[in-house]
Amino acid sequence: MPAVKHYEHYLNIINTGLESLTFPEQPASLYEPIKFSLDLGGKRLRPVLLLIANELYGGKEKEALPAALAIEVFHNFTLMHDDIMDKAPLRRGKPTVHEKWDTNSAILSGDQMLVWAYSLLSGTNEFYLSQAYTLFNETAKGVCEGQRWDMDFEQLEKVDDLQYIQMITLKTAVLLAASLQMGALLAGADEFEQKHIYQFGLNLGISFQLQDDLLDVFGSTADVGKIQGGDIVANKKTYLWIVAHKLANDENQKQLLHWSSNKNADQKDKIRAVKKIYETLGIPALAEERKSYFYMEALKHLDQLSLPQEKKNILQGLAQNLMDRIS
Amino acid sequence: MPAVKHYEHYLNIINTGLESLTFPEQPASLYEPIKFSLDLGGKRLRPVLLLIANELYGGKEKEALPAALAIEVFHNFTLMHDDIMDKAPLRRGKPTVHEKWDTNSAILSGDQMLVWAYSLLSGTNEFYLSQAYTLFNETAKGVCEGQRWDMDFEQLEKVDDLQYIQMITLKTAVLLAASLQMGALLAGADEFEQKHIYQFGLNLGISFQLQDDLLDVFGSTADVGKIQGGDIVANKKTYLWIVAHKLANDENQKQLLHWSSNKNADQKDKIRAVKKIYETLGIPALAEERKSYFYMEALKHLDQLSLPQEKKNILQGLAQNLMDRIS
Repeated sequence: MPAVKHYEHYLNIINTGLESLTFPEQPASLYEPIKFSLDLGGKRLRPVLLLIANELYGGKEKEALPAALAIEVFHNFTLMHDDIMDKAPLRRGKPTVHEKWDTNSAILSGDQMLVWAYSLLSGTNEFYLSQAYTLFNETAKGVCEGQRWDMDFEQLEKVDDLQYIQMITLKTAVLLAASLQMGALLAGADEFEQKHIYQFGLNLGISFQLQDDLLDVFGSTADVGKIQGGDIVANKKTYLWIVAHKLANDENQKQLLHWSSNKNADQKDKIRAVKKIYETLGIPALAEERKSYFYMEALKHLDQLSLPQEKKNILQGLAQNLMDRIS
Repeated sequence: MPAVKHYEHYLNIINTGLESLTFPEQPASLYEPIKFSLDLGGKRLRPVLLLIANELYGGKEKEALPAALAIEVFHNFTLMHDDIMDKAPLRRGKPTVHEKWDTNSAILSGDQMLVWAYSLLSGTNEFYLSQAYTLFNETAKGVCEGQRWDMDFEQLEKVDDLQYIQMITLKTAVLLAASLQMGALLAGADEFEQKHIYQFGLNLGISFQLQDDLLDVFGSTADVGKIQGGDIVANKKTYLWIVAHKLANDENQKQLLHWSSNKNADQKDKIRAVKKIYETLGIPALAEERKSYFYMEALKHLDQLSLPQEKKNILQGLAQNLMDRIS
């Protein structure tokens, strides 16, 4: 029997761990937004990946937990600051911190979360501390760069699809990859294993984000707190948008420009029309193809791991579940 | 001869170290604000204190440098984010990052500086790494709390002078204290020495901030980029403001309220009038008394150190210089 439990088991560990974090009572204006943000819930995908990778390599859950919590707190820090920058009103169906409190609170509580993430990471076994910090630091740098590229792209008229892949690699995939590597590292896996499990996560993360872009337009149901077609409404430069603008003929270009520049357009009309153009141009199939490419790349790296096949199957099953989600 | 060099020597090391940091070229929008911020110069007081403490305890400059740079980068991160929160237009006579670029840039480049600070700290000798990270983490948490109290106080009608001391302890003093402790720690000083050099720095830092409050109103010349009496113009709740409001009789209260609520008042008239009230109430002498109290506390901790007297004299001379500044 593979030595791994159900997703729920890990999710519970993470949620229990987050609940047991003891933030000071004061200043309440600093810590309330942090608690609010961590209480919003979610899949806790990154720390769960960390714990699973750790268990697959024979690590001890308790020793991996500080790093897992550090990564989840870090992830929520990025959401809090990204929401300010993106002027997002909602997160998981609730007001964002800068809306519920104010921008200064979201800046400062976010800063404190980043510090807290590092502080949690300090709970790591001293034997691995230096490597853990290095991995965490390089990852955090990448995530900030990814967010910057994302913001820069929103100001550009044209973005290349390769540039887009590089951006989502930094913004989304490196943290998933680092979570897996951290789990392996803390279980004593060697560099070869760490490298390939990182690459597995990196390619899976890219595939995951392309799936996200597809689901926003072509998913069957909307995720809690998200609007179906929200990316189209916001003129967000997703993979679909970028490839559509690359392939569109003059008439399609004109139509896309019409919908993106018409601020008074009915949202449903706009979504329907842009979706139609995407379909005419064969964008869903192209995006699916890209998504599959990175998914297959992920599996190649999975194959390289020295883990027994039954353990690899667990990671593959998890990857498959991520890609099979419909919202 | 005491084994310590002139301030300029350490300043040069820090400035050379900062110049040699190799930030990526891209995304330029992320790294240009960081370089701009670090190029603004300044006294580099915190990293210089770190290097001096390190040398006094027989440490190696090269091994202390990464932590010294980490602390300076961290300090500049706090300035970048504080400037957003305080809506400050200028820093050292130049536009602040959120003015020169925009708020999002100042948020994200600030975040990246915080990550970079941690990344620099990773360059510390592995033997001290865990202790160095713990000291850094606890300090950073304190600094964020201090900034939060400062913002909260601005919204209150009344602030107690003890609360104010606690706020500046966190916002300003803990980083000066931690710089000295870090220098001692990285030279292998024991816990007793670390504790007392920390307390020396903490009390000196409080004294230093009270001096700052005094100089803003009663200094002979204005610091570069600062307006003489700027705290009065901005109705900032400094130590002077707080004690004045505590001691003022009804007539003085009325006058203070008049000047703080009158947005169209001539700045010079306002400064002159409030300064006069402070003098009538004997505020400068009270603030001087408080300042001296913490300065003497600092010297008591200095006295506890096991360093030879000539080395203690160096720290005392440095402290004296800080308190003797006239702007």
